[in-house]
Amino acid sequence: MSVIYDRVALIGLGLIAGSIAHAMRRGGLAKEIVGTARSSETRAIAAEINLCDRITETAAEAVAGADLVVLAVPIGAMAAVAADIAPHLAAGATVTDVGSVKQEVIAQVGPHLPDHVHFVPGHPLAGTEHSGPRSGFAELFDNRYTLLTPPEGTDPAATERLKNLWIGCGALVEEMDPDHHDLVLAVTSHTPHLIAYTMVGVADDLRRVTDSEVIKYSAAGFRDFTRIAASDPTMWRDVFLSNKDATLEILGRFTEELFALQRAIRTGDGEHLHDYFTRTRAIRRGIIEAGQDTDAPDFGRNMAKKGDTE
Amino acid sequence: MSVIYDRVALIGLGLIAGSIAHAMRRGGLAKEIVGTARSSETRAIAAEINLCDRITETAAEAVAGADLVVLAVPIGAMAAVAADIAPHLAAGATVTDVGSVKQEVIAQVGPHLPDHVHFVPGHPLAGTEHSGPRSGFAELFDNRYTLLTPPEGTDPAATERLKNLWIGCGALVEEMDPDHHDLVLAVTSHTPHLIAYTMVGVADDLRRVTDSEVIKYSAAGFRDFTRIAASDPTMWRDVFLSNKDATLEILGRFTEELFALQRAIRTGDGEHLHDYFTRTRAIRRGIIEAGQDTDAPDFGRNMAKKGDTE
Repeated sequence: MSVIYDRVALIGLGLIAGSIAHAMRRGGLAKEIVGTARSSETRAIAAEINLCDRITETAAEAVAGADLVVLAVPIGAMAAVAADIAPHLAAGATVTDVGSVKQEVIAQVGPHLPDHVHFVPGHPLAGTEHSGPRSGFAELFDNRYTLLTPPEGTDPAATERLKNLWIGCGALVEEMDPDHHDLVLAVTSHTPHLIAYTMVGVADDLRRVTDSEVIKYSAAGFRDFTRIAASDPTMWRDVFLSNKDATLEILGRFTEELFALQRAIRTGDGEHLHDYFTRTRAIRRGIIEAGQDTDAPDFGRNMAKKGDTE
Repeated sequence: MSVIYDRVALIGLGLIAGSIAHAMRRGGLAKEIVGTARSSETRAIAAEINLCDRITETAAEAVAGADLVVLAVPIGAMAAVAADIAPHLAAGATVTDVGSVKQEVIAQVGPHLPDHVHFVPGHPLAGTEHSGPRSGFAELFDNRYTLLTPPEGTDPAATERLKNLWIGCGALVEEMDPDHHDLVLAVTSHTPHLIAYTMVGVADDLRRVTDSEVIKYSAAGFRDFTRIAASDPTMWRDVFLSNKDATLEILGRFTEELFALQRAIRTGDGEHLHDYFTRTRAIRRGIIEAGQDTDAPDFGRNMAKKGDTE
């Protein structure tokens, strides 16, 4: 790989920014990686594990002279960071972000940016339930999609350059309209997360079933929900507040269908249930064929000895 | 390991029975494994892959002379199978099952069994989204719980012997009352499955988001739902119909909490969301500590090179 940006500034040093740092180093994509975070503890850990070439105390210092600035903070903090760094951005620099909602980020960040920078919002569809500066790893984006949502009028060369960075980080890259992005993500990510959080909360509330029982017997399906529901609370609060309309729309559809299945259970309509469950099975097959998961019979367990080649 | 039963008859040759066959062979737990299935295709495949020592055409033949009979058919088929095999059961034999609901199985099977056999219902909490005679593997039950729910008056020696078989298959074994089992499983398995099926169905229905988008961008959380929602439709239809009361109770609580979170999104109550998401995170920690999942940052991907020791 070859250098794509001379100096990249990472604002926020959590799972995503940390993984970008690892992936850029793996690919030799940046001459210098500068990082900063609001918390002094986070900065200290990042320095200790040598996550970046240089750690600065403020975002303003970090972005000085950078030709790429990556906003990797919760969506609720984006506007303040944008206002903070705006006067210090180099002419011709590209500003991007990794937020899970795109319309709101564009509305919050866009107005603060000077005309002499390019704004190319982005969203890597990758994550784990872990957070913090130690949680990143270079392989996080490998074979996963990163969606770019450049507003109309963005310089195509700036978008192309950022696209090449993501490809260098292992990602598959596509462009999408911000509003369509937010709807697609409401379906594939935001609503599933809310539902998982809810189910885990219900289990925790139920006095007739003890916590230890829930934990011991989690392998029966619940375990996958707890994995999703262990994700960063601040990030997810901001996702739901900033993608309110699409999430509420999908939740409405979800509730409708759930009530129809609930009614089938109550009335003993086995045919309705069987038909529904047969239809959902086909989607799984599509995901395996698209290379976004493996078919290994491990239900989340590592069964490498069975020939899992992923 | 030493032999625990001389002849084990497996009625039904799907994922669970197939895995029991592999695990019994791994441990040398049975002198002879006899299997049968209703479908001639299933029997042919089982014979081809040498899943059992002997395949019979009928359940009556399979149970003749067996000292353990395992009912591994959908719950809706249990009563007919029990009636069918009852006259052919050897005196002193143990009959068990692997159904996901216990009260209904006891009600359906119990009345058919003669007094000269022991009835020890069971439920291994293990599975994958795959089914059929080729889907089994010896490691499926390793370090997973199997719950036994012997009715009052069951000979403790018969329960103990079956317990030893499951331990030999790698499982952790506990006894539980059938009604409590059904409630615990409604929380940890049945309701999560229904919700996953529903969410996958919603994604499939939505005309403004294409199937290919749902599939491509599934890594963002949805993927774990599709894995759950790909499980065997007949088995799950029967689970919901036969554990109706507990499932409807948990669904009621789920809907209540979901509406509270939905309201918090609508009204912009970030504190409510953040508090809720923080609480659910702790449960995940408990599951990892209980050894029922790993902490490896792979979100379902195989990252063995990162030191995953599971």
